[in-house]
Amino acid sequence: MNFLEERIIKDGVVKPGNVLKVDSFLNHQIDIDLYQKMGQEFKERFKNENINKILTIEASGIGIACVAAQYFNVPVVFAKKSHSINLDGDMYVAEVESFTHKTKNQVIVSKKFLGPEDHVLIIDDFLANGCALQGLISIVQQAGGSVEGIGIAIEKGFQNGGQIIRNLGYHLESLAIVDAMDDETGEITFR
Amino acid sequence: MNFLEERIIKDGVVKPGNVLKVDSFLNHQIDIDLYQKMGQEFKERFKNENINKILTIEASGIGIACVAAQYFNVPVVFAKKSHSINLDGDMYVAEVESFTHKTKNQVIVSKKFLGPEDHVLIIDDFLANGCALQGLISIVQQAGGSVEGIGIAIEKGFQNGGQIIRNLGYHLESLAIVDAMDDETGEITFR
Repeated sequence: MNFLEERIIKDGVVKPGNVLKVDSFLNHQIDIDLYQKMGQEFKERFKNENINKILTIEASGIGIACVAAQYFNVPVVFAKKSHSINLDGDMYVAEVESFTHKTKNQVIVSKKFLGPEDHVLIIDDFLANGCALQGLISIVQQAGGSVEGIGIAIEKGFQNGGQIIRNLGYHLESLAIVDAMDDETGEITFR
Repeated sequence: MNFLEERIIKDGVVKPGNVLKVDSFLNHQIDIDLYQKMGQEFKERFKNENINKILTIEASGIGIACVAAQYFNVPVVFAKKSHSINLDGDMYVAEVESFTHKTKNQVIVSKKFLGPEDHVLIIDDFLANGCALQGLISIVQQAGGSVEGIGIAIEKGFQNGGQIIRNLGYHLESLAIVDAMDDETGEITFR
């Protein structure tokens, strides 16, 4: 069991509806030491990839990506979830549906910040059905860049997002893969 | 002129409507070295304050807060801007109006992550009319905690948010205060 799995066992809470609450350390209150360990682990797992940019999506991905970027010495670009008046000019757009919020959002990245020269590591906090991730991959493809890797903190292995991404041949690394969880006993089973 | 002011002169773009675009290095694409310098500068400016938690607001504040938190060795809590089904239990709520997006949002923090024991440094990327900041201060006050300092990357000094906050007696430090900008010449005047 790795450091993130141990932390999930210690402080994660299983709620009905396959909700895993990790808000005390990962995505509302943030343990920065944990983020640093995650960043170092992503660097180790992607050490053979040629990466010059990290792409993530607001909001929970930003902190993880920024701390991880220190170990890669590359800039971060974060995709925005809705049209902003400050985002002028040409933009890459992908439509994604949020499992958590039951809403459709446009994922937007300015064309200024992704192009054919970019070798991208995508980072996000959760992977479940993979819609957000598919939107980010679509944006890198629109830019003509290459997805060199995908680093996820927690993958819900009982949903099919991860399987689809692996079937497509991407180098996906999830630091913790939850294969089952029981909201009555609180038990969490990792792959 | 400090490092952030120099970067704004170099890469910032003045747009009509008093919009300062810093999306190539601060809030869409992110220069992590710059974030580290900002974090070190916040630590220097607040070195005499007793801080045990950093509070920010999604989305652009999160990365700045997470990188800065490494120099304070404290956790980050980020306020969420709309009600999420993953945020159950008791919450602190404040209503804020966004200057940029012309919308009203509820700013939400779980009561689990802020309390009377907290000595809080608030961090955000921009301060203009100060509505978001007022919401964050309100939330710390609801929690019974104390606001030990407020660290802002860029303050629009020609709007009154900063003046109000200073009048209220808060220790506000803005790394760059823009007193005027001209979208025809591109000229930016710092305080």
